[in-house]
Amino acid sequence: MRWQYMRSTVEGGFWGQFQNLVRTEVVPFQWKALNDEIPDAPKSHSIENFRIAAGQAGGEYEGMVFQDSDLYKWLEAAGFLLAESAQQGSKSSSDRARIDAQIEAWADEAIDLIAAAQRPDGYLNTYFIVKEPDRRWKNLREAHELYCAGHLIEAGVAVHRGTGNQKILDVVRKIADHIDGHFGPDEGKVHGYPGHEEVELALIKLYRLTGEKRYLDLAKYFVDERGKSPHFFDEEQKDPAHFTIFGIRSYPYSQSHIPVREQTEATGHAVRAMYLYIAMADLALETGDEKLRQACTRLWNSATTRRMYVTGGIGASARQEAFSTDYDLPGDSAYAETCAAIGLFIFSQRMALLEDDSRYADIMERALYNGIISGLALDGHSYFYVNPLEVVPAVCDANPTYAHVKYRRQPWYGCACCPPNIARIIASLGEYTYHVNGNTLYADLFVAGQISCEIGGKKVSMRLKTGYPWKGDIRFEYNGEQAKFDFAVRLPGWSRNASLSLNGNAVDHNTLLSKGYIHLERTWLPGDVFELSLPLNVELVHANPKVRDAWGKVAVHRGPLVYCLEQADNGESLHAVQVSRATDFTVAHLPEFLGGVTLLSAEGSVLAETGVADELYSNSTQHPPVTRKKLTFVPYYAWANRSVGAMTVWVHQENVNTK
Amino acid sequence: MRWQYMRSTVEGGFWGQFQNLVRTEVVPFQWKALNDEIPDAPKSHSIENFRIAAGQAGGEYEGMVFQDSDLYKWLEAAGFLLAESAQQGSKSSSDRARIDAQIEAWADEAIDLIAAAQRPDGYLNTYFIVKEPDRRWKNLREAHELYCAGHLIEAGVAVHRGTGNQKILDVVRKIADHIDGHFGPDEGKVHGYPGHEEVELALIKLYRLTGEKRYLDLAKYFVDERGKSPHFFDEEQKDPAHFTIFGIRSYPYSQSHIPVREQTEATGHAVRAMYLYIAMADLALETGDEKLRQACTRLWNSATTRRMYVTGGIGASARQEAFSTDYDLPGDSAYAETCAAIGLFIFSQRMALLEDDSRYADIMERALYNGIISGLALDGHSYFYVNPLEVVPAVCDANPTYAHVKYRRQPWYGCACCPPNIARIIASLGEYTYHVNGNTLYADLFVAGQISCEIGGKKVSMRLKTGYPWKGDIRFEYNGEQAKFDFAVRLPGWSRNASLSLNGNAVDHNTLLSKGYIHLERTWLPGDVFELSLPLNVELVHANPKVRDAWGKVAVHRGPLVYCLEQADNGESLHAVQVSRATDFTVAHLPEFLGGVTLLSAEGSVLAETGVADELYSNSTQHPPVTRKKLTFVPYYAWANRSVGAMTVWVHQENVNTK
Repeated sequence: MRWQYMRSTVEGGFWGQFQNLVRTEVVPFQWKALNDEIPDAPKSHSIENFRIAAGQAGGEYEGMVFQDSDLYKWLEAAGFLLAESAQQGSKSSSDRARIDAQIEAWADEAIDLIAAAQRPDGYLNTYFIVKEPDRRWKNLREAHELYCAGHLIEAGVAVHRGTGNQKILDVVRKIADHIDGHFGPDEGKVHGYPGHEEVELALIKLYRLTGEKRYLDLAKYFVDERGKSPHFFDEEQKDPAHFTIFGIRSYPYSQSHIPVREQTEATGHAVRAMYLYIAMADLALETGDEKLRQACTRLWNSATTRRMYVTGGIGASARQEAFSTDYDLPGDSAYAETCAAIGLFIFSQRMALLEDDSRYADIMERALYNGIISGLALDGHSYFYVNPLEVVPAVCDANPTYAHVKYRRQPWYGCACCPPNIARIIASLGEYTYHVNGNTLYADLFVAGQISCEIGGKKVSMRLKTGYPWKGDIRFEYNGEQAKFDFAVRLPGWSRNASLSLNGNAVDHNTLLSKGYIHLERTWLPGDVFELSLPLNVELVHANPKVRDAWGKVAVHRGPLVYCLEQADNGESLHAVQVSRATDFTVAHLPEFLGGVTLLSAEGSVLAETGVADELYSNSTQHPPVTRKKLTFVPYYAWANRSVGAMTVWVHQENVNTK
Repeated sequence: MRWQYMRSTVEGGFWGQFQNLVRTEVVPFQWKALNDEIPDAPKSHSIENFRIAAGQAGGEYEGMVFQDSDLYKWLEAAGFLLAESAQQGSKSSSDRARIDAQIEAWADEAIDLIAAAQRPDGYLNTYFIVKEPDRRWKNLREAHELYCAGHLIEAGVAVHRGTGNQKILDVVRKIADHIDGHFGPDEGKVHGYPGHEEVELALIKLYRLTGEKRYLDLAKYFVDERGKSPHFFDEEQKDPAHFTIFGIRSYPYSQSHIPVREQTEATGHAVRAMYLYIAMADLALETGDEKLRQACTRLWNSATTRRMYVTGGIGASARQEAFSTDYDLPGDSAYAETCAAIGLFIFSQRMALLEDDSRYADIMERALYNGIISGLALDGHSYFYVNPLEVVPAVCDANPTYAHVKYRRQPWYGCACCPPNIARIIASLGEYTYHVNGNTLYADLFVAGQISCEIGGKKVSMRLKTGYPWKGDIRFEYNGEQAKFDFAVRLPGWSRNASLSLNGNAVDHNTLLSKGYIHLERTWLPGDVFELSLPLNVELVHANPKVRDAWGKVAVHRGPLVYCLEQADNGESLHAVQVSRATDFTVAHLPEFLGGVTLLSAEGSVLAETGVADELYSNSTQHPPVTRKKLTFVPYYAWANRSVGAMTVWVHQENVNTK
């Protein structure tokens, strides 16, 4: 089998800090949120719904039709955290052991509740159990039953991998078997598929864990049925028991307009699209289906080369949370849902597995360091659902076009898909850092920690030490057994003038570079050290000139991080800020500021506080008054952690001249 | 009385052509639309609703709750056209007499139907008569009964003035008396006011026609009650017969958040705001209420100096069709409803009456020549409801944020307020061209035709000949009786280096200028000629630097006209077009093109068709490839009359340098 489960540990550094935040703050906070114990936050009711479904409480179901998935994603995050600790083993501190014990106790409580709510036939969805017992599986287009089941399965796989817990695996197999008994090509089964994809990728995870091929076949069935004529969503509507929940009737919205192998453009609801594409890529990986792989490549190209924000955010349109057309990437009305960036991150990893090309991990990195972690406050207690590239608070308050854009992270959401999603992705980061294909170990992301796996029957192990993303020093120390294999280290697409050394001797990477990875095929001995040094220059990134919103502007990058301007540092009228073309950026790392960030400063100008004319329109040839100012750029992910204010990623340059 | 009814004729030239279009095409087309005889257009059902209400047809009510108002506005337009012909008298051609006879026959048919539908007690609203007979006056916030009554009253006043028709005046007085019997301060009456203002200004019109002071008092009552605590819209909800139609619960939406004299910002639904402010200004004029006048000035300043598009469009937000905050004027998602620009035009005229300052007529002119007539296709058979400043058709199709933005005018709308509104405003243009205050006759707009009125007991009469807005020659020929009065001619705010002559002798206008008008106080003799010559230079207009969307860009103006770029002339990527700073504009009048327009051309650059890199984001320092091109600007009002394509008003300049 080409695919092998592997995860690195996440130890220290940038991601160790983030994962620690998830462990000590985010997961405990979200457990409270799911238990409705956060004052002044929108009520989750998710756990209460399970209690009601299990007969342990009275009352009515509350929340979205897919409220179950919030608990499942939380549980998945818990599973990943426990897996991480188990992998790190004895190195864990007693503080950490204590919090892990608490997390495991909560997880057990959740599992007991989930198991108690499950029906004897394996069915489990508290909305339908409590509210609509006669309408199970009657509205696949909208009811999110398979979506929730998918998140349950993912949670079960993660928890079982992390703790060996058998009870959750039993629950998961029971619901998977129930679904397998209800859907499929056989006569008497429903020939349908879900409106919101998710169960497909989950079933493949379950197949990979259990080796049970029925789950893979069912996933393939769901993917293959999608978009066929006559359209299943029309057919199911003919059932008298059909009912309407949201009323969105668009096929492209759910990527069901044509069969998946014919699809060419990333379309519709961005999270749904990503979850479908992940399953397609997983299937291509498992089955070698070349047409499916080609469709994945096309869709990935569409999403990332024409429809993605510079932050790795996707989904330009708030209405339908959807992709727009090519190059339509408005920054101020952006949706760029945290979940969609997470989806793109996962889809890109699957593409890396399929094609071993570094451009996929480049996009993983772009999404991860920018449009994903921007969804999480530095204290772990509030979240962004929407991740705009430009915010003017007064406009968000006054103009309903921007009603979806928040300038304060929220403690919880009525539709709370993003908060637990960001928890689980950070908790599972070790699963995305390396991959293996044949004799090659690919280093995709630079996350301090240890990777251990088997290549050619040998125990291979590598420790990564790095100050990334603040520093460009990336040091791999080999600590496995002597083994001949190809170690392929990604050279980021943004890097220039990287230098390399093997055991202290400089290496010319040009001869070693293939599809963006530096390939070191050799016999590795314990104690071997490979060092990659990436100069972290400040880069001014331009968008394609077809992007209206960014025309004539630049986005400041350093390493994988996109930077932004905030009002707290640069005044209010950020749209009028101009960065000097002649400027040298000053780079300063502030360990105590915004959780520890490297700040960038540059010469530039802002709109003067006095002397701006009152006229709304004028044929005066006088230019608006500007003031020279040292501009301060902070990492995009760290915005909105201080006072409320304006923010922008795209910035004008002085003396624009396109000739 | 300070106010006197006066209207000039509209003869020949730019507005003669537009009014002719309304007479020969628009009003006949709309009569068909109201009778559901336009193929492939959304059904109006407006006339059918009256037939059903009058018992002349069976079937169900269809359309918006305010569908009656479409017929009323059409009828008002018909009344104005007939008044215009009556005023022009024997000069009318036989063709025109024939079409006028047809219009009058349709108007009579409409009046008969309206009268037949009216209930014996004077009540008239087909929605409630047909559909909800028990819910009359139970939902003032949303039900638009008073709004529809207002448009009926306006129609009646216009028709009666135009033709002397008594039947419609009887209908109108009956409904006004019914309303007066139902609402007001007396015990037993309802102490409320409408959610959508309109009846207030209509009652004042009726008062001015009839001299019946009850109507003025009732208008004043409605205006004064607005925004008082406890809030009427909350009170009426307590009635068990209350019901919900639209569900918008915001007070500012309907300008009912505070009493009107305390309001400082143009707020909420833009058309509602304008109709309220018009009534406030009318009341200030009639009653001398200084606080009310001051409120009007504040609100007008708010609307026009911080919340108005350069086209005179208002209402930046599609959701709630509402004002946004100061300087938030996005061009591509603009709402800028045609009706709102019409409202601003009328409100500005009332402010001119109140304050005799030319800045009000400057805004009338800006709205009229740009954001109002942009709502009408050159063939008169299709309409814009929304008037954006930037359009990319592919984006409007793909991104639901722009779902309200059309790039093709539509033959009709499910909510068809704008088409008949534009008909009535062009048909009534003669009412907005001059005004009198005391001994002074103010020339506000330059519309070729004849004004006749009485000043100081003398019959004053002036004929205006002009090629405006294509030419800057404005020639007033006095043809009244010998009279001493002050003739005040507006010097447009945009003009530079105007020259004046009286009977051929140059006049220095600086000494004569007061509040933007050139005052010629003298004894006027028949044959006196006053000529104003306005050089029509091409002006590059900047927005206030606080306007994000227009920062660093210019809008090309010539005279009162705002120009735009269309794809048909300048290619697709209009956001990347740059006009050269060094360019001289070429000015050419093309009598056969777009109904006869003056085109402007300038040197500039566009994005090259080849050589644009594929990368979405790049840190390359290479600038995007551009091609030199002669840019062609067409008047904004004339856009979207050719092939479907992109459009923009705001354009970048080459070599932007704000230092």
